[in-house]
Amino acid sequence: MDIFTQYKPWIDRINECLLESVSPRLPRTLSEPIHYFLNNPSKKIRPLLNIFCCEAVGGNVEDAIPAATAIELFHDFTLVHDDIMDEDDLRRGKPTIHKKWDSGTAILVGDALIGLSFQQLVKSPANYLNQVVKIFSEALVKVCEGQALDKSFETAPQVTPDNYLDMIAKKTAWLFKASCEIGTTLGGGSARQVEQLSQYGYRLGLAFQIQDDLLDFTADENKLGKKIGSDFKMDKKTYITLRYQSILNENPALAKQYPLNETDYQSLADFQKALRELGVVNAVETEINQYFEESVNSLREALPQVNDHPLHQISRFLHDRQY
Amino acid sequence: MDIFTQYKPWIDRINECLLESVSPRLPRTLSEPIHYFLNNPSKKIRPLLNIFCCEAVGGNVEDAIPAATAIELFHDFTLVHDDIMDEDDLRRGKPTIHKKWDSGTAILVGDALIGLSFQQLVKSPANYLNQVVKIFSEALVKVCEGQALDKSFETAPQVTPDNYLDMIAKKTAWLFKASCEIGTTLGGGSARQVEQLSQYGYRLGLAFQIQDDLLDFTADENKLGKKIGSDFKMDKKTYITLRYQSILNENPALAKQYPLNETDYQSLADFQKALRELGVVNAVETEINQYFEESVNSLREALPQVNDHPLHQISRFLHDRQY
Repeated sequence: MDIFTQYKPWIDRINECLLESVSPRLPRTLSEPIHYFLNNPSKKIRPLLNIFCCEAVGGNVEDAIPAATAIELFHDFTLVHDDIMDEDDLRRGKPTIHKKWDSGTAILVGDALIGLSFQQLVKSPANYLNQVVKIFSEALVKVCEGQALDKSFETAPQVTPDNYLDMIAKKTAWLFKASCEIGTTLGGGSARQVEQLSQYGYRLGLAFQIQDDLLDFTADENKLGKKIGSDFKMDKKTYITLRYQSILNENPALAKQYPLNETDYQSLADFQKALRELGVVNAVETEINQYFEESVNSLREALPQVNDHPLHQISRFLHDRQY
Repeated sequence: MDIFTQYKPWIDRINECLLESVSPRLPRTLSEPIHYFLNNPSKKIRPLLNIFCCEAVGGNVEDAIPAATAIELFHDFTLVHDDIMDEDDLRRGKPTIHKKWDSGTAILVGDALIGLSFQQLVKSPANYLNQVVKIFSEALVKVCEGQALDKSFETAPQVTPDNYLDMIAKKTAWLFKASCEIGTTLGGGSARQVEQLSQYGYRLGLAFQIQDDLLDFTADENKLGKKIGSDFKMDKKTYITLRYQSILNENPALAKQYPLNETDYQSLADFQKALRELGVVNAVETEINQYFEESVNSLREALPQVNDHPLHQISRFLHDRQY
């Protein structure tokens, strides 16, 4: 049984809360695209992390539900705005909001989603409100920093794999971290547990994003819900292309045999072949596994006794995913 | 002495807090446009309302400073994103962020400003945090509703002056209201005072916005910092053009003498002449005065003894402004 079947009651609950968070008094030009987006199924990884971190430290899961809803709304905001900036046409297999409506609508929908997310977050238990609003606001700034770095890479003369890791740490891993941090805080976890589960989320987020970059070159197009190699086609720097370039930069002999830029390839298939020949796929897979392992180590530190805990299962599921 | 000279120490203080709110660790692609925007002088009306509402009900003004900073950052976010949607080239006399940089940067700057604003807001005294985060988040949703309505008017077959008032109530008046509501709350005001000063802010905001629309047709271009009649030129519905149309709709005789649409005029000067002939300018001025009066009435209810209070002075200043 996969985790989405197993945790369906929680996912259904979050979906209900998401829909309830949208005031029926919103103007139609705002509520329609918001419902369009919310009704499109998603994995709800981040709210599940939040809920299960709360539960893991002995908290009442009900206390984490508003924050879980807030976290998913926040995540949705980032997707809507990033899709405009990246000029992406599809999201979760459906036209993006700026494509189906227009950029102005997508900007507003994202802004409104931030508002709705804070409206949910503030329903969290009052004694932890200060901490959770702090963590959440910091995550909002971090995610903008990450996206700003990502954007700046488009025109940067040189981007190293380390630059890229710093970017995804902010753009992706930070919200995984914040989801765990908020859940553990709301569950009344100790400072040590908050730190350990934050680290768990952070490492998991890094593994997740690098894996995402890899799957964009290797996954099944129908399951992925977008074109394979879409990042390749638009000359967007990803961890995969940067690792490819960095191998060639360090090996003058190889640099004579392979084009330095992925855009010099005639087809995606040729580039994929080169990635395998140069060991990029294997190297990146090893790295992903390392981050997963480190995240599980942090998890074990926080929860030494709980081998079959949902947080373990989420990690395993993400580790094994093919799309 | 105008209120900006009189309250310069407060304005300087808010400016300091605004600059301090921008973490030096932000990537340059984000911090540069944010500083560019924050360094451009603005009237700081909303944070002043917040501070003086706190003071008016006997609160410690220091308790309102983080919220005052948050409110200005929030206001700046709305300007940055609205300028993208409205395709405006100038803001406060300088190129808008999406013009000087690009739309993606402007989207991100706006998003980051929301994050920074909540980071300031959460520094408010813990005992009022729940209330102020609620008011602030609601204002964020409302301002998006207002902008969504404004956008929808561009293609709506019929917009009445009442539709327009509903739109500016959300887009502009709500943040005036929230500024007063948060300040009064942080000052420990009674529920009655919170209600009265919220109403004061709300009415003041309505007066302010209608006046803004009127000044866009009548003000001195250099002082206004943007082209006069810019709304006229782009066929954007404003309270002035809607009132003009509504007069013609109600008077078949006049409708034969004047074009129904302002865009049918050869020049702005001709349209301005018609506005005066039809009494639109006078009628709108009367309406603005009514809102100002109602706002001052709410103020007097809350503060019967305080005729020379800064809140009165701010009202008078806004009432008398020519740009």
